[in-house]
Amino acid sequence: MEEKIKQLRALLADIADLSYTAALLDWDQQTYMPVGGAKGRGNQMALLRHLVHERATSAELGKILDVLQPYADSLDPDSDDARMVKVTRRAYEKAVRVPGRHVVEFSQASTLGQQAWMEARAKSDFSIFRPHLERIVALRQEYATFFQNFDHPYDTLLDDFEPNMKTADVKAIFDGLRPRQVELIKAIAGKAQVDDSFLHQPFDENKQWDFGKQVITRFGYDWNRGREDKAPHPFTTSFGINDVRITTRVAPDFLNTMLFGTLHECGHALYGMGVAPELERTGLEGGASLAVHESQSRLWENLVGRSFPFWQCFYPRLQETFPQLSGVPLEKFYKGINKVQPSLIRVEADEATYNLHIMLRLELEIALLEGKVAVKDIPAIWNEKMREYLGVTPSSDAKGVLQDIHWSGGAIGYFSTYALGNLISVQLWEKINQDIPDLVEQIRQGKFEMLLGWLREKIHRHGSKFDPQELVQKVTGSKIDPAPYERYLTKKYTEIYNL
Amino acid sequence: MEEKIKQLRALLADIADLSYTAALLDWDQQTYMPVGGAKGRGNQMALLRHLVHERATSAELGKILDVLQPYADSLDPDSDDARMVKVTRRAYEKAVRVPGRHVVEFSQASTLGQQAWMEARAKSDFSIFRPHLERIVALRQEYATFFQNFDHPYDTLLDDFEPNMKTADVKAIFDGLRPRQVELIKAIAGKAQVDDSFLHQPFDENKQWDFGKQVITRFGYDWNRGREDKAPHPFTTSFGINDVRITTRVAPDFLNTMLFGTLHECGHALYGMGVAPELERTGLEGGASLAVHESQSRLWENLVGRSFPFWQCFYPRLQETFPQLSGVPLEKFYKGINKVQPSLIRVEADEATYNLHIMLRLELEIALLEGKVAVKDIPAIWNEKMREYLGVTPSSDAKGVLQDIHWSGGAIGYFSTYALGNLISVQLWEKINQDIPDLVEQIRQGKFEMLLGWLREKIHRHGSKFDPQELVQKVTGSKIDPAPYERYLTKKYTEIYNL
Repeated sequence: MEEKIKQLRALLADIADLSYTAALLDWDQQTYMPVGGAKGRGNQMALLRHLVHERATSAELGKILDVLQPYADSLDPDSDDARMVKVTRRAYEKAVRVPGRHVVEFSQASTLGQQAWMEARAKSDFSIFRPHLERIVALRQEYATFFQNFDHPYDTLLDDFEPNMKTADVKAIFDGLRPRQVELIKAIAGKAQVDDSFLHQPFDENKQWDFGKQVITRFGYDWNRGREDKAPHPFTTSFGINDVRITTRVAPDFLNTMLFGTLHECGHALYGMGVAPELERTGLEGGASLAVHESQSRLWENLVGRSFPFWQCFYPRLQETFPQLSGVPLEKFYKGINKVQPSLIRVEADEATYNLHIMLRLELEIALLEGKVAVKDIPAIWNEKMREYLGVTPSSDAKGVLQDIHWSGGAIGYFSTYALGNLISVQLWEKINQDIPDLVEQIRQGKFEMLLGWLREKIHRHGSKFDPQELVQKVTGSKIDPAPYERYLTKKYTEIYNL
Repeated sequence: MEEKIKQLRALLADIADLSYTAALLDWDQQTYMPVGGAKGRGNQMALLRHLVHERATSAELGKILDVLQPYADSLDPDSDDARMVKVTRRAYEKAVRVPGRHVVEFSQASTLGQQAWMEARAKSDFSIFRPHLERIVALRQEYATFFQNFDHPYDTLLDDFEPNMKTADVKAIFDGLRPRQVELIKAIAGKAQVDDSFLHQPFDENKQWDFGKQVITRFGYDWNRGREDKAPHPFTTSFGINDVRITTRVAPDFLNTMLFGTLHECGHALYGMGVAPELERTGLEGGASLAVHESQSRLWENLVGRSFPFWQCFYPRLQETFPQLSGVPLEKFYKGINKVQPSLIRVEADEATYNLHIMLRLELEIALLEGKVAVKDIPAIWNEKMREYLGVTPSSDAKGVLQDIHWSGGAIGYFSTYALGNLISVQLWEKINQDIPDLVEQIRQGKFEMLLGWLREKIHRHGSKFDPQELVQKVTGSKIDPAPYERYLTKKYTEIYNL
């Protein structure tokens, strides 16, 4: 068995190394690649994905998994080896259903799609992106046909990001949440609006950049094991647990873009850096799911970064960096960064309206997948739904349907994980505050070691050993639950808006 | 045969895509990778090199080559298909002699070696690099044992960079050249030294960077198909003919580093960008050899960039960019950038002393390979030879044995190609001036289209279809010949130093 486990580890290490290499091709494409490189990059990415798929579906891997199953069953079910066999088998049984041809086609379509999306977004011209999105939707529809025994075709896509989660579960959570959030937004709309005009003024880009770096250095981001670059759509990626990189964008006249974007990506990166070293190159070094990953980014972005005690510590530094804020008192600044206002851009949305952006996307994705809506009609439907849900209309497709990179890279089924991540983040936050009673005071002093230590111990080190529901249950005692999030929003905005 | 050629092309395309991917892993390692990423990168690079080796030595490839040989023999021997079979077979027959195990070990050793070299160079501490270099030398010695029928083990290394070139040929050329260069340097030393103090003063780094970009834009560097980044040891790399990237370093108080480094790398990049599109992903899209590649970089760096007519065009702009040069007349500037002075750093050496740096390295490499010298003794021998050949002594190993990246990446057998490149560049230059009689006037006007057009037509578009000697013969009518270079140096420095 010793020998077989070694063989399995060798196969998984190769898959990991190829996946990391593909991730570098992608990182480069989104940060530095000249436009001329797109076609060649498509070929390279398709080949790498094909090689990963070939290995992840090889008969050799299947045989080793079969041989190892009795051994795995004899182990502590939470042990690394037992989980390695379980998680690998799960991925294997899904992957063998997808033909290699489809993998190559999907890879090529998404590489070309991303490149087209960048151009389309820059020119705010949906027609450049449209044929690519049509191709991607068709491929995602084909993907669903490779599986059986699902309640809804969308389940097959969701499951890739959120293991064992069902479309119906997500809809149920969202249906419970929507009226409460709408009610809250209405209540807020009836009150005097807070002023955030001071956030919308010129801020030197280099100083913004440096400030963001200072903050995440305090959070515990390790610059020897990562770096930060600019990208039109910020993301975090890793090429091992010792090379976990973030990207950010900087707006010259709006502070939030860089600020909360950087804290957000840092949250993802801390997760990637905190995985137990013995899980590296086993396929268990990713996060438990995208929602759990998002819970980490949202925790640092919102529960830390948009909190009053955090700014008690950091606001004086921010004022020093940007003297134009010297006349803005802390309380006013705090309210400003937490202003609730229905707006166009998801990544800049406030905590109260954010989930409505997600619900819109989920509905569109399901309709596209079901073939009830055509790609060509998406911009108009998008704008219509924005008016209906949020009362705002995009002035251009760049600020509407073209704002997110996800679909261009083939990631349909992904968006709902953002909303689930919000919910999980607050579930964790309630538990952390029980376990570290003086957490607020620590944050006020700019100390994050205990917080990071808790997250490492409870979440990060486990990598993807546990399913999201399983992990949330283990750590908080209950499954994903919107109640803590509702409590959090109500309390926070009751104070800010005197509800 | 149609079908078989298609199969061959598909195999070669995969090899090319894997090689380009490996090149990106390397580019990233030398530009942006955090130190923590080194170990993981070593694994990734080793795997990619293994995959390339596996394909480049596959029985399938061997069989297709055998089947295609009669067909190839029936074609015009200079046709793409005939050359594709010939060049692939040559590489195949070499590659099958090298065990996969060796390829992986060599790859790991060179990845770790490069990382160690960066640290060693930064700290000027040879002991950090020493065990890595020992390992690399041992692996290069082992490599030579895989071959037979060579005159000298060093031939096996040289042949990888300079197809069909012999150590004895290179020695003969160098032996003929050395006394003439030494004589010239002596004659110059007897004359009044020119003043280049104005090159050694603070120059704003961003302005330097921008000036370099402006010049190479005029040369014809296509920014849609490339980019420029900073790297401790500048290099050019490509991920296809439409993504050819250069790197540069900028010294805050010495203009030449950025200036001539950028022109040099641009020369390499123009070669890569100029290969015929139909050769892409066939294995023929590289240069004919490293020496031919170097002839292109040296041509743009020296024969254009260090010429008087070039600065008649660009000096006013340089003065505008750096007002501290406004009191320095053009003639003085021209002499300054062509100052001959034995110095420590190869890449900053003048044209008269450059080849002596190469000869020193070639002697050390041969002695290391023969086992006549131990790695631990290399720093002392380096310094001794620097005194003997050039009369200067490195103040630190960073300015001595640690200055070049080559050995750390396993590239032993590489350096002599630099000197050969110098010779070829002037051979070509004589021919170009015959074919474009008003070239000097065009350069004076900042027009480089005809020059670039000539190089594309005669050199670039052929990729690696021809061996270096074959190509030089085709274009200039004779094999690699030091006489034009000697004539060029003598004429140039006779004018500058009133010899």
